[in-house]
Amino acid sequence: MSSIKNTNIRLTLPVVCFVWQIAMIILFGVFIRYDEESNTHWVETKAHNNITSDIENDFYFRYPSFQDVHVMIFVGFGFLMTFLKRYSFGAVGFNFLIASFGLQWALLMQGWFHSLDPQTGKIFIGIESLINADFCVAGCLIAYGAVLGKVSPVQLLVMTLFGVTLFAVEEYIILNLLHARDAGGSMVIHTFGGYYGLAISWVLYRPNLHQSKRMQGSVYHSDTFAMIGTLFLWMFWPSFNSAITDHGDGQHRAVINTYLGLASTVLTTVAISSLSQKTGKLDMVHIQNSTLAGGVALGTAAEFMISPYGALIVGFFCGIISTMGYIFISPFLEKTLKIQDTCGIHNLHAMPGVIGGIVGAITAAAASESVYGKQGLINTFDFTGDFKDRTVLTQGGYQAAGMCVSIVFGVVGGAIVGSILKLPIWGDPADENCFDDEVYWEVREPATHPLLFTIQPLGGAIVFDLV
Amino acid sequence: MSSIKNTNIRLTLPVVCFVWQIAMIILFGVFIRYDEESNTHWVETKAHNNITSDIENDFYFRYPSFQDVHVMIFVGFGFLMTFLKRYSFGAVGFNFLIASFGLQWALLMQGWFHSLDPQTGKIFIGIESLINADFCVAGCLIAYGAVLGKVSPVQLLVMTLFGVTLFAVEEYIILNLLHARDAGGSMVIHTFGGYYGLAISWVLYRPNLHQSKRMQGSVYHSDTFAMIGTLFLWMFWPSFNSAITDHGDGQHRAVINTYLGLASTVLTTVAISSLSQKTGKLDMVHIQNSTLAGGVALGTAAEFMISPYGALIVGFFCGIISTMGYIFISPFLEKTLKIQDTCGIHNLHAMPGVIGGIVGAITAAAASESVYGKQGLINTFDFTGDFKDRTVLTQGGYQAAGMCVSIVFGVVGGAIVGSILKLPIWGDPADENCFDDEVYWEVREPATHPLLFTIQPLGGAIVFDLV
Amino acid sequence: MSSIKNTNIRLTLPVVCFVWQIAMIILFGVFIRYDEESNTHWVETKAHNNITSDIENDFYFRYPSFQDVHVMIFVGFGFLMTFLKRYSFGAVGFNFLIASFGLQWALLMQGWFHSLDPQTGKIFIGIESLINADFCVAGCLIAYGAVLGKVSPVQLLVMTLFGVTLFAVEEYIILNLLHARDAGGSMVIHTFGGYYGLAISWVLYRPNLHQSKRMQGSVYHSDTFAMIGTLFLWMFWPSFNSAITDHGDGQHRAVINTYLGLASTVLTTVAISSLSQKTGKLDMVHIQNSTLAGGVALGTAAEFMISPYGALIVGFFCGIISTMGYIFISPFLEKTLKIQDTCGIHNLHAMPGVIGGIVGAITAAAASESVYGKQGLINTFDFTGDFKDRTVLTQGGYQAAGMCVSIVFGVVGGAIVGSILKLPIWGDPADENCFDDEVYWEVREPATHPLLFTIQPLGGAIVFDLV
Repeated sequence: MSSIKNTNIRLTLPVVCFVWQIAMIILFGVFIRYDEESNTHWVETKAHNNITSDIENDFYFRYPSFQDVHVMIFVGFGFLMTFLKRYSFGAVGFNFLIASFGLQWALLMQGWFHSLDPQTGKIFIGIESLINADFCVAGCLIAYGAVLGKVSPVQLLVMTLFGVTLFAVEEYIILNLLHARDAGGSMVIHTFGGYYGLAISWVLYRPNLHQSKRMQGSVYHSDTFAMIGTLFLWMFWPSFNSAITDHGDGQHRAVINTYLGLASTVLTTVAISSLSQKTGKLDMVHIQNSTLAGGVALGTAAEFMISPYGALIVGFFCGIISTMGYIFISPFLEKTLKIQDTCGIHNLHAMPGVIGGIVGAITAAAASESVYGKQGLINTFDFTGDFKDRTVLTQGGYQAAGMCVSIVFGVVGGAIVGSILKLPIWGDPADENCFDDEVYWEVREPATHPLLFTIQPLGGAIVFDLV
Repeated sequence: MSSIKNTNIRLTLPVVCFVWQIAMIILFGVFIRYDEESNTHWVETKAHNNITSDIENDFYFRYPSFQDVHVMIFVGFGFLMTFLKRYSFGAVGFNFLIASFGLQWALLMQGWFHSLDPQTGKIFIGIESLINADFCVAGCLIAYGAVLGKVSPVQLLVMTLFGVTLFAVEEYIILNLLHARDAGGSMVIHTFGGYYGLAISWVLYRPNLHQSKRMQGSVYHSDTFAMIGTLFLWMFWPSFNSAITDHGDGQHRAVINTYLGLASTVLTTVAISSLSQKTGKLDMVHIQNSTLAGGVALGTAAEFMISPYGALIVGFFCGIISTMGYIFISPFLEKTLKIQDTCGIHNLHAMPGVIGGIVGAITAAAASESVYGKQGLINTFDFTGDFKDRTVLTQGGYQAAGMCVSIVFGVVGGAIVGSILKLPIWGDPADENCFDDEVYWEVREPATHPLLFTIQPLGGAIVFDLV
Repeated sequence: MSSIKNTNIRLTLPVVCFVWQIAMIILFGVFIRYDEESNTHWVETKAHNNITSDIENDFYFRYPSFQDVHVMIFVGFGFLMTFLKRYSFGAVGFNFLIASFGLQWALLMQGWFHSLDPQTGKIFIGIESLINADFCVAGCLIAYGAVLGKVSPVQLLVMTLFGVTLFAVEEYIILNLLHARDAGGSMVIHTFGGYYGLAISWVLYRPNLHQSKRMQGSVYHSDTFAMIGTLFLWMFWPSFNSAITDHGDGQHRAVINTYLGLASTVLTTVAISSLSQKTGKLDMVHIQNSTLAGGVALGTAAEFMISPYGALIVGFFCGIISTMGYIFISPFLEKTLKIQDTCGIHNLHAMPGVIGGIVGAITAAAASESVYGKQGLINTFDFTGDFKDRTVLTQGGYQAAGMCVSIVFGVVGGAIVGSILKLPIWGDPADENCFDDEVYWEVREPATHPLLFTIQPLGGAIVFDLV
């Protein structure tokens, strides 16, 4: 029955792209303007604020980090998902598509919730807005990892539309209402994105997915391509966690902590991966993914005075837990909970995200004036305005509360969006055609290619086995 | 007849490389010096100009953008052209070669035209010179796209020598004499480079190119490699368009506009690509190329107050036009006008470049003091010195004139250079050996490799088809 | 005999990873703290030192360069070594592992030698420490190039432990005791790393390595992957050589010199490569490696006033020498000196490193107040404190002495470490299993894959040849 699924998206995909893009143009026309640092009136702003040099434009504090984050979003996430033998176009291409839509919608949603100017009714954007838009998109790309190869591009666009919307709301609750700190998004990005994707995948459960088992593995070169994604994510994660932290020591410290935590993760990932095989061989799935868990788990605490050895400890445990997740938890999720998680985002984002939230709550609660300095404590936790009397212990509580909000938004939001995506109108592939680029892409090579055969010499003869 | 072409370049290639490189050394020795910001006398310059911090060295304003541009030139352009199944070495390797020569020659040519110090007779270079040299090279790499796979490395070097020379002259006319603005080079880089390459390809028309048709397609992994080029170009295009704009708001705004325009382009490219196939499948050629058209078309206007929704609109139309170019115009150019354009630079650079020039002219003409502010208008269009009384309407006219200059230089220059390249001394390949790395590279795998076969199970037997 | 080698690393690899990582955590806990610019007390430091803007934090001077260096370490070195047809996992993966361990150990070793605070007994780290740690790791990754495919990951970790240790000592002698300048590490990184690797490879000589000859070549796509490494190294080398030079003109000048030197190298590499083949074809081995030699050779002199044409000359000769090294010297080293150098690090790092040391010594000795300015000379060579009376001629002598120190440390250190690695406990592969990922990695494709066959049409029949 499933084999008669209609994957023709010649109507839906262009319509969604055109209509939504036109909507973006109209909404941008109504709401979005340059902020004072990207406006030609900057020359007056400078004079007015006694700013002596153009270098004090926020652009110069954040642009290098922004570009690193941008690379993570498009090359990092995109290539990390190319590991499947025959889904590289979908991995890189659909990632490209939904990120390009998502960042526009994110500028609007985050603008409405965080920076709508009450006087003019406008959203003023600058470099920090672009970083936040990329961050918001990251949540949806994480979710894509759970459903990779099993959905149509139209479904992905719908998933992104709702994902960005939910993101902006939970972010508003966590950062503004609860006043939790989460500069690198352990909670708002990774935990939310992880559970959002898992919940969708749970609703879209495919009992006969084994029918496309032949397509679900990697080949040698696809694994090498995936390492491009892994490494760009790994290298630029310090920029991710520091991109929107405080100028000066805030960015500086977040970089050091993330750099160290990630290094530590690599060693424990290798250790557990080697332990998991009879002869100690390493598994590329672990190296491609679990090595990144330390960066996820430092998303909240990287800007705190967690201290260098503290960062190493976080990375140490995350490498272990994430790799064990791939070995033990993923099979359990699939068999028992009926959650099919193509890229193992539970192990790379959801779990390490929760750990990051907990680490953030504990380190916030344990912060002290003796370590931070009086002004340092105020700066780091932004104990100003309505929150100027908040204690670190209270802050720890609100951090934990933020953690819960992100889980709830992910699970409930994902379940609802999953139900929408279950409607038989989106052009998703049949069970036996999952993980195959030929469904949505013009693939120039013939369908039967050498990779599907093994050729083995046997005695004097040569034997061909269909894989 | 063509099969007896001599592709031995053992004499010409080394001679050209050695002689030209030695010429560069001599000319650099005579003309090129460090500017005041890269000189050990900077400590005195600082004191003299009351500069209080080393961070006000132009290096810190532009180095991150420079490195992004550098990546675009070598990885972006290089890998974008690896899409052919068997021309990746030539794509990446010759791109590497001609860019390395071109940037040296560009420093001299641009130096002579733009920054020759009349007192000392020297050219003083700094980080902005390096960016401009990379920009100049970009024009030649665009042209390479039209002749990819059909010329020898010696021809490419000749093409680069003349290309850089022509570039420096047209740039001087457009930016200095006409005083047009073109920070990201819609006109001076993309339009010129596009028409230069197309004109050369037109002169070098190969009526029997179909003889190497078997090599002209892509394979799965070569398309994935090409996406590396696409993404690095796409991600870093905001740096390209902002690399030499004004410090402060100028760079900031150019980044925002380019970021938005490119996002919009992706959605319309996907829409048209999907519409062009019976079942709505996407074509990698479009995704690899047309998604970039928005960046090209914002090369002039990115630094203007085009406003965020304006950038989205430009990207919107460019995605449509560029993708339609691949579907309708490229076949027309080849059949009717006898222009064989391997990478479709007409759709990615020439057309969007012209659009960018027009957009620039219109937005310049429509600029107003109410939007820009009095000083902002002067800063943005550099209405100082000889040009202090120029009106925005006049400016719009000169922008349009600049557009025409770049087309004329491209077409006429390309036709002349093409004639030179037609001489039978450059070692170009025969029609049946085009698009094949084995002509100019030691390829270690045997000439007959599995990719040239399809292996198909048919009933119980296995059938081999030579492709 | 060798075929019964035990490559089971299920015990040793996890134990080494866990124990060493735990040791790192403990030592970091005891010794490593944030420096004043990455500490929440920065707000007080700023006030105390009359620093008016956060942008004067060293972070903003060095972070873009740091990230470029980081990319060189992980993507550059990692992918450069993927050229072998079946060792891409080991190339990228083990590079990832040892760099992640090495940078932690480097922070400690370099901290103890260079920046241990005598009062507190602590090492205070900031962005410059991270760059230096990455630099230190580079030395070990260079050495990995010599033994690529012939050692186990446990051996690589041991090699890295000792390599970093030796590095910190020779660096201390060269930079602190001899007060030589070596910002980009021609001596301390490339010469040391090169000879360290060559000496290890000499001790680990495998007379029967020809037994794995079938695995020692490249295939088409593996060569393309390697170009990713080449290009990221090439593009970001200006950042490498300028990452820790003086703020302002120091960084600016080092970038210009390296940019130019590398461009020049590409042309002479192509020239010699073309000359070396009967029909002038190019060899990917040369393009992948020798094009980088100019960057190595400018590691010492890039921050000096070597002048633009001087940089071109250095690059010019390095391209020639390095390429000739691949053609003539590597076979000689292997046959006569019994040094098997998988990646040819002798040609890419050792020789150009020595050239760089010599160039540095000569240009230092030739420095003059008329060229540098009085204060410029003091700043560039740091003629302050104990060294305030040193002349440039003396400086040249000390530079040359530094060169010798790095060679001695490399050769002697490598010989000793090689002897340790010869112990039969590290799980290294048998001679017939070298250069094969299946020894240490779960490879999902079957062992006999199409790449090992050639399929040739012969008359009407099809013939299969086992390679």
